Amino acid sequence: MPPSRQLMPPNPNFGAATKQFLMAMPISQHFGFDVTDVGPGRFEITQPFRQELSYREGVFQAGPIGTLADMAAACASATMLPEGWIASTADYTVKLLEPAIGERLVIRGRIVRFGRTLSVAAADVFAVNGSDEVLCATALVTVRNLAPALPAGEQVELPVAHGGRRALSSS
Amino acid sequence: MPPSRQLMPPNPNFGAATKQFLMAMPISQHFGFDVTDVGPGRFEITQPFRQELSYREGVFQAGPIGTLADMAAACASATMLPEGWIASTADYTVKLLEPAIGERLVIRGRIVRFGRTLSVAAADVFAVNGSDEVLCATALVTVRNLAPALPAGEQVELPVAHGGRRALSSS
Amino acid sequence: MPPSRQLMPPNPNFGAATKQFLMAMPISQHFGFDVTDVGPGRFEITQPFRQELSYREGVFQAGPIGTLADMAAACASATMLPEGWIASTADYTVKLLEPAIGERLVIRGRIVRFGRTLSVAAADVFAVNGSDEVLCATALVTVRNLAPALPAGEQVELPVAHGGRRALSSS
Amino acid sequence: MPPSRQLMPPNPNFGAATKQFLMAMPISQHFGFDVTDVGPGRFEITQPFRQELSYREGVFQAGPIGTLADMAAACASATMLPEGWIASTADYTVKLLEPAIGERLVIRGRIVRFGRTLSVAAADVFAVNGSDEVLCATALVTVRNLAPALPAGEQVELPVAHGGRRALSSS
Repeated sequence: MPPSRQLMPPNPNFGAATKQFLMAMPISQHFGFDVTDVGPGRFEITQPFRQELSYREGVFQAGPIGTLADMAAACASATMLPEGWIASTADYTVKLLEPAIGERLVIRGRIVRFGRTLSVAAADVFAVNGSDEVLCATALVTVRNLAPALPAGEQVELPVAHGGRRALSSS
Repeated sequence: MPPSRQLMPPNPNFGAATKQFLMAMPISQHFGFDVTDVGPGRFEITQPFRQELSYREGVFQAGPIGTLADMAAACASATMLPEGWIASTADYTVKLLEPAIGERLVIRGRIVRFGRTLSVAAADVFAVNGSDEVLCATALVTVRNLAPALPAGEQVELPVAHGGRRALSSS
Repeated sequence: MPPSRQLMPPNPNFGAATKQFLMAMPISQHFGFDVTDVGPGRFEITQPFRQELSYREGVFQAGPIGTLADMAAACASATMLPEGWIASTADYTVKLLEPAIGERLVIRGRIVRFGRTLSVAAADVFAVNGSDEVLCATALVTVRNLAPALPAGEQVELPVAHGGRRALSSS
Repeated sequence: MPPSRQLMPPNPNFGAATKQFLMAMPISQHFGFDVTDVGPGRFEITQPFRQELSYREGVFQAGPIGTLADMAAACASATMLPEGWIASTADYTVKLLEPAIGERLVIRGRIVRFGRTLSVAAADVFAVNGSDEVLCATALVTVRNLAPALPAGEQVELPVAHGGRRALSSS
């Protein structure tokens, strides 16, 4: 799935801003994950095994897998937002591929298409044991791009110059 | 969405069995929800607001919403399984419709089609404040029907008599 | 799945307008279906069996099933649009439940949540033989609400008065 | 999305067999596409613009886009089946990213995870004009692996040696 090329985040502090956006959520504090990579249009989370996230001993449950996939994908998309904008999930589809048995999960999100009001992103979830990585889930996520100053649910065009619905390739 | 008519669970203790299946998961203990209704092909969960499940104060985050929708739908399907069988999620798609602001969520799962190896179920998620219910998310879930005695991932035909892929309508 | 109550289409000619929107597409002429019911937030299509839409003799292929489900759901949502606005599919998820063997398909779309920029709708697909109806597929669809005068892909707020992201229940 | 490594199709004639499976469907004859690449776990279709598949002049409609994505993904998965087995779609999710304006569509399917009873595959859809390719849709597809000799809807284990639900990496 070829990501949009030449992604140039309009916010020079996109990495710190996106990480801050995610880490400010109470649920993130509870999960106890780390952000292990951020780049233009990509975002990686590493989640240690925790019993509270499990189906049974040693196995992550489907819900936290989807939660983390949504977060990594939405944050991958959020890296391309102007300062102060946020990404709000409209929907996510998660395919569970293997039992998620591992010391930790590594979740890699990436933009598929960045738009003005809506963006689409994807995430792959790997169960990791030592140096062994198994792809245990994959997800597609649609996010709304929301300006922060507006009342909840209001929506505005992104104030950036780009061609129609084409992927934002320059600021 | 018309559920299969005349659903007759093959396990006379389907209610207790399905509830036990869900409540035995460590994640369920952590969420702290109640099972507030169970019937043939349906399953309802009530989740009080908890900060650990929130996006910001008072608002449930998308991940727990999907987690609960998956659980209610998978358990609705599990009510139709023979004793000892379990439902294992293959995928779920969640559409977030409104900000999930509420004292609690009520999640209503129902079978859409019960099959031998695969079933499809749905769930609606309501944000509740006093007597006000707002539909804040809807989900479709595909589950595998797994026999418990087999090694993880093995799959067997349901040992029940019914017509091909038609919904199980009698035991 | 409770549809929004009290749906009051802002366009008094919503039925004719939505039907015209669908029937003007070249693909609709090719499929050769009929619109057999339209109401506020709902839209029904009846599709006779045609070999060009089949997987093998007598069985509709998955693609046309999804095509019709998307159309019925998007048109159900379009019934709530102001005059001249159109619904444009952002995504659809189709669950295939039974082999679609029938003289015809009846596809029933309904709004799940009507919003300003995005709406969610659903569709159930029935394979019909004589008086026998079998639910053979179900779908969830997200649509964008687009003003017609704008260049392709541009998006504007619906010029209607309603409370935030709540479903439009009055004009 | 890393495909399973070392895919070794158990059927040495997987390319011809998968192409034959697709081309034998009446709908394929109607669409008039070509299979332009086949390999272990991948399958590419090229579809010329046809008015019958359009939303308006020059623009492919969402339904045929989903149809082709489903076909390419299901066939990518089918390349890994033993002789005589077929892939039957259980569900598909399609995200529409850009208006599908082009002389033709190129649809690239690939296996994400090959399983015994269920497999997951993906497809990207490109609108092509001259040498310009625009990613206009992406899809995830779940397929059932069915033995051909069984009555419709019956399901059997794949008679291949591999480790549990792990991706088939050797025959």
